[in-house]
Amino acid sequence: MKFELQNTDSRARRGRIDTPRGSVQTPAFMPVGTAGTVKAMYPTQVRDLGTDIVLGNTYHLMLRPGAEEVAALGGLQNFMQWDGPILTDSGGFQVMSLAKLAKMSEEGVRFQSHIDGSEHMLTPERSIEIQTLLGANIRVVLDECTSFPATHEVAQTSMHLSTRWAARSKSAFEKFDAGQGDALFGIVQGGVYEDLRHESAGALIDIGFDGYAVGGLAVGEGHEEMLRVLDFTVPALPHDAPRYLMGVGTPHDLVHAVARGIDMFDCVMPTRAGRHGLAYTRRGKVNLRNARHAHDPRPLDEESACPAARQYSRAYLHHLFKCNEYLGPMLLSWNNLHYYQTLMAGLRAAIEAGRLGAFIADFERQQTDGDIMPLD
Amino acid sequence: MKFELQNTDSRARRGRIDTPRGSVQTPAFMPVGTAGTVKAMYPTQVRDLGTDIVLGNTYHLMLRPGAEEVAALGGLQNFMQWDGPILTDSGGFQVMSLAKLAKMSEEGVRFQSHIDGSEHMLTPERSIEIQTLLGANIRVVLDECTSFPATHEVAQTSMHLSTRWAARSKSAFEKFDAGQGDALFGIVQGGVYEDLRHESAGALIDIGFDGYAVGGLAVGEGHEEMLRVLDFTVPALPHDAPRYLMGVGTPHDLVHAVARGIDMFDCVMPTRAGRHGLAYTRRGKVNLRNARHAHDPRPLDEESACPAARQYSRAYLHHLFKCNEYLGPMLLSWNNLHYYQTLMAGLRAAIEAGRLGAFIADFERQQTDGDIMPLD
Repeated sequence: MKFELQNTDSRARRGRIDTPRGSVQTPAFMPVGTAGTVKAMYPTQVRDLGTDIVLGNTYHLMLRPGAEEVAALGGLQNFMQWDGPILTDSGGFQVMSLAKLAKMSEEGVRFQSHIDGSEHMLTPERSIEIQTLLGANIRVVLDECTSFPATHEVAQTSMHLSTRWAARSKSAFEKFDAGQGDALFGIVQGGVYEDLRHESAGALIDIGFDGYAVGGLAVGEGHEEMLRVLDFTVPALPHDAPRYLMGVGTPHDLVHAVARGIDMFDCVMPTRAGRHGLAYTRRGKVNLRNARHAHDPRPLDEESACPAARQYSRAYLHHLFKCNEYLGPMLLSWNNLHYYQTLMAGLRAAIEAGRLGAFIADFERQQTDGDIMPLD
Repeated sequence: MKFELQNTDSRARRGRIDTPRGSVQTPAFMPVGTAGTVKAMYPTQVRDLGTDIVLGNTYHLMLRPGAEEVAALGGLQNFMQWDGPILTDSGGFQVMSLAKLAKMSEEGVRFQSHIDGSEHMLTPERSIEIQTLLGANIRVVLDECTSFPATHEVAQTSMHLSTRWAARSKSAFEKFDAGQGDALFGIVQGGVYEDLRHESAGALIDIGFDGYAVGGLAVGEGHEEMLRVLDFTVPALPHDAPRYLMGVGTPHDLVHAVARGIDMFDCVMPTRAGRHGLAYTRRGKVNLRNARHAHDPRPLDEESACPAARQYSRAYLHHLFKCNEYLGPMLLSWNNLHYYQTLMAGLRAAIEAGRLGAFIADFERQQTDGDIMPLD
C-alpha cells in the first residue's frame, strides 16, 4: 500500500491510497458490506456512485459463511463481486455488541455466535488470519473499543490491552502477508482523554503501521465531544499515513472530521437509514414513513444525479415503505449512498481548490427547507 | 389499441399490440407489479429484460394508495415510473383469495380489506372506474373466477354471472374511456367444460371486446388439464384479437400455451420463486436454499446474458438467502424474469422462423443437468 498526499487545506487533506486492487481517493467514505453485500445494493451500483472501497465485517463473515469458505471461493472480492479494494474490521467491536457471553482475557475474546450459539475465540492473531483469508487489502488490529463513558483508569487499562494486541496483530500480519502488498492499520484508543490518546498514538507509531484508525468514537459522546477528541488526537498521527475514523458518521460528522484531517470513514448510516425510510438530501433528512408525504408529487431532489432522488415522487416512496416493498430500501439506500459519495466528492474538490471553509459554510446553509429535518 | 398478427406457426401466433403507451411484441409475458412495483426490481431493469408491458393489481392498488390517489399522482405509469403500457386485472380474483368476508351478489362483491379491515364494494362499474383512474392501457372485466373443482351446474351459474358482469363492464368502459384509445378485454370462464367455454366465448364476442382472456385456469387443475381446456377454448376466440391466459404460469405452461395460440401471460412465479431462493435456468430449477450449493463456485448459468446468472457463485447466492440479505431476492428475481423473457423471445423467434416444434423439443431436452430440478 502506498499513500500519496496531494493537497492540504488547513488541516484537511486530499490524497490517494494505492492498493493491489486499485486506488482510493481520499477523503473517502466506505459503504459497509456487512455480510458480503452492501445491503439492498448491486455492487455495480455501489461502484457507479464513485465508491473506491467497501468495508467487510470480520465478525459476520467468520460466522457465515466462514473465513476459510470465503478463501476457498476466491476471497471476499470475488465472493461478493466487488471490483475494488476491501477493508475489513477486526471483528472486536461486533463481538462486544452482537455476540452472546463475550468474555475478554489477555489472550483475546471468547464468545457465542448470535446466530447459532456456537463458541468461538477471537485473538489478535486469529483476527489477522481471518482478514487475510478474506483477502482484505486493508486490515486492522484487534482492539478493545473502550466503553463510554469510561473513567481515566478504565480507559487507560483498556488502551494498554489494545496496545499489546496491536503488537501481536502486527507480528501476525507480518507472518501472514508475506509480501502481498496489503496494509495493516493500528487503532488509537484512549477514550476522551488527551494524554491517553497521545500515549496510544505514540505506542502504535513505535510498532509501525501503514495507517492509523481512530477508534472509540461515535459511541454516545456526541458530535462536539467527538470533534474535541479529534482536535487533540489527529495531530499526534503521522502526516504520511492515512487516518481512518471508524464507524463515523452523519454528514456533519464527516464534514467536520475531514476539516480536522481525517482521510477515511465507514458507517452503516446511509444504508441502515435507507432501509428504515430515512432519506438524506442536500436540504436535510426526510422521513418518508411520515404521512405528510403520502400526496407529495415532488421527488426527493429534482437536481440530484441519482434516479432514486430525481425520478420517484415522495408519495411513491411513502407508498413503498407503507407496503414493505423491496424497492423502498433499494431506492433509499441508493439515494443515501449517492448523497454520501457526492458529499465526499465535494469535500475532495473543495480541498483541492483550497476552499473547504466556503464549502462547509454552504453545507450548513443549504438546510433551509422547512419540510424536512435538518441533517444530523 | 390495435393488434397485428404477423406470423403463425401451426396454432401459434406472432404479433404486435399497439397501445397509446407503446407496443407489445406477442407472445408476451407480463411481470406482475402487484402494489405498483415488480417486487425487488428497478423498473429500468424490468424494461431492459425486454419487457413491453407489466400488470398492476386493482385490488392492491385500490386499497393502497387508492385509485383516486394514483390518478392524482399522474396515473400508475407515472407513479411507478414504468415507461410502457400497463394491464390491470379487475381485482375480482384477489378479492376472493385475499380479502376477508367477501360476499358475492348480482351487484358485485362486498369485502373487507386484508390490510385494515375497511369495507369495500367492487362492482363491474367500479372496477372499470378504478382501472381507468389507474390509467391502465388494457383493462379487464370483473368476473367471478370459477372455483375448482366445480360441477357443470356451478360452473354454468358462475359463468352466466360473469357474462352479465362483462356486459356491464363494457358499458362502464364506454362511459369512462371516451376515446382515449385504451382497451378492454373480456374473460372466458366455464371451468373445464367445453360447452360452457364455447357459450362464454360466444357471449363475449357478441358484447365485443378488444381482446379475450382465458380465466379460471392454473387453479389446481394441472398442466395437462389446462392444455386440454385450451385445446377447445382457444379455437372459439376471434383470430384478430389478442388472447391472454391469466395467471399462467410455469415455463412449460407458457411454451405449450403459446403452441395453442395464446398471446399474453402474467404470473407472479418468477418473482415470487426468486424471493424464496428458487432460480429458473435453461437446465431446470435450482433451490439455492439447499445446503449442497454452499461450496459451489459455479454460477447459475455461465452462458446467460444476465449478470445475476453469470456473475455470482451459487455459494454466494446460497449465502445471501441464508443471511436474509436483500440482494438474494434482487438477484434471483432478476435472473428469473430474465429467464422468462428470454424464453418468450425464443418463442417469438421460433414462430417467426416456423420452427416452434423444434424449439419446444429443444426446450424439453435441455433439462439434463442432474444437479437441478426439472422445470415445472
